[in-house]
Formats: sequence, C-alpha cells, structure tokens
Amino acid sequence: MTAHARRRAAVVAAFPDTIDAFLVSRVVNVRYLTGFTGSNAALLLGRDGIAVFATDGRYVTQAAAEVPDLECVDARASANALVARAVAAGAGRLGIEASEVTVSQLETLRVAAAENVELVEVGEIVELLRAVKDGEELDRLGRACAITDAAFADVLAELRPGVTEREVAWWLHTSMRDHGAEGLAFETIVAFGPHSAIPHHRPTGRELAPGDLVKMDFGARYDGYHADMTRTVVMSPAAQWQRDLHAEVLDIQQSCAAAARVGAFPRDLDAAARAAIEASGHQPSHGLGHGVGLEVHERPFLSAATSDPALAENVTVTIEPGIYLPERGGVRIEDSVVVSAGGSRSLTSSERTLIEC
Amino acid sequence: MTAHARRRAAVVAAFPDTIDAFLVSRVVNVRYLTGFTGSNAALLLGRDGIAVFATDGRYVTQAAAEVPDLECVDARASANALVARAVAAGAGRLGIEASEVTVSQLETLRVAAAENVELVEVGEIVELLRAVKDGEELDRLGRACAITDAAFADVLAELRPGVTEREVAWWLHTSMRDHGAEGLAFETIVAFGPHSAIPHHRPTGRELAPGDLVKMDFGARYDGYHADMTRTVVMSPAAQWQRDLHAEVLDIQQSCAAAARVGAFPRDLDAAARAAIEASGHQPSHGLGHGVGLEVHERPFLSAATSDPALAENVTVTIEPGIYLPERGGVRIEDSVVVSAGGSRSLTSSERTLIEC
Repeated sequence: MTAHARRRAAVVAAFPDTIDAFLVSRVVNVRYLTGFTGSNAALLLGRDGIAVFATDGRYVTQAAAEVPDLECVDARASANALVARAVAAGAGRLGIEASEVTVSQLETLRVAAAENVELVEVGEIVELLRAVKDGEELDRLGRACAITDAAFADVLAELRPGVTEREVAWWLHTSMRDHGAEGLAFETIVAFGPHSAIPHHRPTGRELAPGDLVKMDFGARYDGYHADMTRTVVMSPAAQWQRDLHAEVLDIQQSCAAAARVGAFPRDLDAAARAAIEASGHQPSHGLGHGVGLEVHERPFLSAATSDPALAENVTVTIEPGIYLPERGGVRIEDSVVVSAGGSRSLTSSERTLIEC
Repeated sequence: MTAHARRRAAVVAAFPDTIDAFLVSRVVNVRYLTGFTGSNAALLLGRDGIAVFATDGRYVTQAAAEVPDLECVDARASANALVARAVAAGAGRLGIEASEVTVSQLETLRVAAAENVELVEVGEIVELLRAVKDGEELDRLGRACAITDAAFADVLAELRPGVTEREVAWWLHTSMRDHGAEGLAFETIVAFGPHSAIPHHRPTGRELAPGDLVKMDFGARYDGYHADMTRTVVMSPAAQWQRDLHAEVLDIQQSCAAAARVGAFPRDLDAAARAAIEASGHQPSHGLGHGVGLEVHERPFLSAATSDPALAENVTVTIEPGIYLPERGGVRIEDSVVVSAGGSRSLTSSERTLIEC
C-alpha cells in the first residue's frame, strides 16, 4: 500500500456516520491524498472503497505521472464532475468540506447533485489527519528545515552595517535556493532596529546600523513541505536591554518547546506562553505557533481561539513566542518542532543564544 | 478624493437593491478599496457612507500607515467584528461575498448577525469593478510589464545548449528582481523541446539542446500588480515545422489582440481563438486569456465557460493562444494588453516574431 492509499484509507475510517462518500476539493488535501501537485483537482472517496480523481486538460499528462493508481476524470469543474460520479455510484449522502467550499460553489454543487445526492457539510477531517506526519513527510520537512539552517549560517556571515533589509531577504532567498529549496515557504521577514518591534514587517531599504536588532523570519519549501524559523541577532554593540529581552524570550521559547509533548492541548500551550510573557512584564501579541507541513500555517493552531485536540506523536508545529517593544525593537525566536512523548524535537537547529555580529 | 475613496463610492453605487451594507472579506478586494497590503482584513461599506476597516493586532501599525482615512477595528475575526458594526449601524440587510465566504464562515457570520441583520449573498461586485483599471493601476501594471520585458532581453542573451530549465527560470527571477520587481507574479514556466507541449510545465533539470523550442511564461509583480507574458523561441537550428507552428500561433495571437476592443464579449473572443486553432488543423487546449491586475488571474476570463460582460475601456487581459503537439513541442505567445475602442494596446512589448538563438 502506498503512503497515499494509506492516507485515503485513514480518511474513510474517519468518515462521520452522516456520509457515504466525501468530496475533497481543497487542492492541498488532494495533494496529500494522491500526490498530485497541480492547481486544480478534486477527489471522491467512498465508504465502499471507490476513489476517483479529477483535474482539467492542462494537467492530464502530469496527473498520469503523479497519480497513476487512480481513475482520472478530465473536467475544468473538477468537483462538480465528481458529484456526478457520486450520483452514479449510488452515494446517498456526500460530504463536502465546509471550510473550503464557498457559498457560491455550494450552489453549483447543489445543481450537480440535484435530487440524487444529499450534500452534507463536514469539518476538517483531512486537515486533522495531516497534523500527524508520517516518515516520508518528516524527511521532507527535515530537509526543508536543514536548508533553512544552512541559509541562516550563510547570511549571518554577511551581516554588516549598511546592508538593507531587502538585500538580506534576497540573500536568504538565493542561499535557500542554492541549498536545494524549490521556493520560499512564505515571504521572508527581515527587520532591523525599531522595525523588529513590528511582528509582521516587510523588508525595506533600511540600512543596518550598529546596535540594531536583526529579526529574520523565513523558511524553505522542499518537495511541498514548509519550514518556518525565526532568529533575532544583534549588530554589535549589543545593549543590555537587548540581551535581557532576548534571554527572556529564549527562556519562554525553550520551556514552551519542552511542554509541546504528546497529550498537551494547543490552547493550554498558548495560554502558558501568554502567562509567561505577562509574567515578564510584557504584552503578548500573537499566538504561540501553528502546524507546519504541506501548508506553512495548518492544524493545529497554538492560539487562544483554537479548539484543536491534544497533540499526538509526530505532530509538527512552530514554537514562536515574541516580545515587542514599540519604537525600540522586538525579539522572536521560532523553531519548527516534532512532538513526541517526552517533549518536542526541533527540526530547525540554528544557534538560539544571542549572536552579536 | 483619493483613488481608494473613489473606488469605494463606485462599489456603493453598484449595490444591488437587496442590501443596505456590504461586507468585503476578500483580502485583495480590501486592498483595492483601502490600500492595505496585509493578509487579514475586512471592510464594511454602507449605502449611507459608512466605511469601517478591520484587521488584527499584527497589522495595526501597518494599517495606520496604509489606511489613514478609515476607522480601524482591531480583531482577529475581522469579518465577524464588522458584522457587529453593521448591526450597530442599523443595517438591516448585509451583503456578503458569495464567492469568497465559505460554508463554515457563513455559520460564524450568522452567529454574529443573530436576528439583527439579514445576510444576503452577493456576486462579484468588486471583482467586476476591478476589471477596469484607473491610471494609477495602469502605471503599476505597465511597470510590471516593462520589468518582464527587460528580464526576457537579459535571459535571451544567455540561452545556450546545456543550460537547464531550472537555471533559466532562476535567471528570469533574479533579473526581474534586479529590474525592480517585488516578486514573481506566478511560478515561472520554462519548457524545452517536447516539454513545451505541456501547457503548464514545471521547470526541471532538462538541458537545452540544439533544435529545442524554448517556451517561457513568466511575469513580475510590482506594487501589487501582476504582469504575465509568454514567448517561445528556438535554439538553432530551427526546423520548418517549428517556424510554421510559431507563425500560425502569432497570426492568431495578433488577430485576437486586435479583436479585444471595447464592446467585444470575452466568450466570443475565446470562441474565435478556438475556431482559428481548429481551422489550422489543431486542437485548442486552454482559454484565450484572463484579466490581470492585483491578481494574476482575475475578471474577465476569456474562456468558453465565462459569462463576463463586454470589454470596456481600460480592461486589462492576457491574450495567450497556444498550439501543442504532444511529444514534439508547443508554441504559446502571450501579451498583457489594455482594451481600447480601436483594439488593444500591449503592455508587454518583447519581440514576437520567432527568435532563433
């Protein structure tokens, strides 16, 4: 059984009682369940074992290579075409992905379903399964993280007064590419000095000055998997408040990473991080982290609003607390980690103590 | 009145009779109407002139700089927060974007609306207005296209046997960046030899060989605007079938570009392109083109399935017919053009006749 067939079987096993078949229309979920890497696809899975893939004419050649084990329907409206297949297969109740299908798509699916199939709104079955990585996935994510570490080492050696945020972001990009990345996991954040106090800063032409904090949040994409790491260093000379702030954040980051073990609840981890930031006299400003894998932000979410289940073995998340002092500067330290029984193991392994360049 | 205020007034003027206020939750539409460039935002517009913007804590500083003219609500669930504002403002019927809001988001909006506001599904009002570009937009799109042309010239000079598809894609990337692009408009396609017969090919390690067709489909993003251009050249020596195929496609491309004038229907333009490809003895395999602007694929769609309205002055679209001979090679020629009364004016201006490198 291939990894994709195993994953499809796990989805069918997770069907709620209310459905006979499931229409997967979120493209990243289709990729997870079939290996298909194009931009238009859908997948029909039946309780009785039926599995039919659909994509359009642009991708037929690619689908034959990537999804050799499934029947492929050629249709631009790939999800609608599979509703017709569900009707033909006699599925009475067809699950749809409520967090993917838009209100207007639902209308077109209803037209395709007519009186023949009942459409049932279903939660994020595939996303929840995707949270737990198998060996193949951990290999790819590990490779993405290793590339990210290598780029950090390359660029660290080049930091000097006068370079701009945009230049540093580009060096990270070219270095990750040279080390084998297929692309960026997300748009790189490079923030100097007071800019580091903005959690999601976009690189500018600002030049690095002595005494600036340098916050770099970046990651490589490798074979579809997304690394995510943040390091904050300082261009010498460092001030004592910068060293203190960095030490506080690192302390919180390390204790949160240790707490990210099997059985821990995402909501509780986030609450603990918030409490620790408040205990240090600061204001929390974003969630503790998020799942990483085929998407750079995926289940589980380590945030106050989440109701994601307790962490399981081989769930991969970021642990990224930050403290930001408006107008002065901020520190965030982030790793991509794998959850295990005794805590978590970091996939990103760049130096965490404050580097004074 | 700023460009953004003008655009907001145009949206309100386009309200259907069924709504008193409109909740814009598609982030690219919010950008168009406010200038905000972050990843989480929503906008409430009322028939009575109310305009309230919402984003979350990560972006409050950025919002203050980018959207100085609107009240800003700080909320992670930005759309839900604006439903509450619509209730407070006494809007009885609140439009939502049916092609953006998912089935599960609709549930949470309904909870926020309770009995106080009726949610009304509305079509793509903003997307249809976005199809027509104003002067500021044409300037940005023109700049994105000029960068794209410059990169083509740079890379053309470097083509020689032995280079790989991936290398050429990377050269295009670095060159566009050097010429001022903020990023890629989309993932670059570089296809050598038989690969050029695959409409959406992803660059590989294949080395360029004498006699190969070279299809390059790429574009720069500049200040949020997306260029899109394809050129197909040949590594000498060219075969006669390649010259003939290229001449056929160029002929179709030029007549389609001339036909893309004010009053022409997108569906008819696509039908004409298909008829011309069939008349040349080949099989059409994708639509003629699509709108370009804040998204690389936007309204109007020049395809068989579209019901988009007749083209108006300053609509920007791609004109990109292609003919693909499986296992042998394919030719696509694409420009990003601006529609006018007498035809269309191309924003991308790289040489279109067959270049034999």
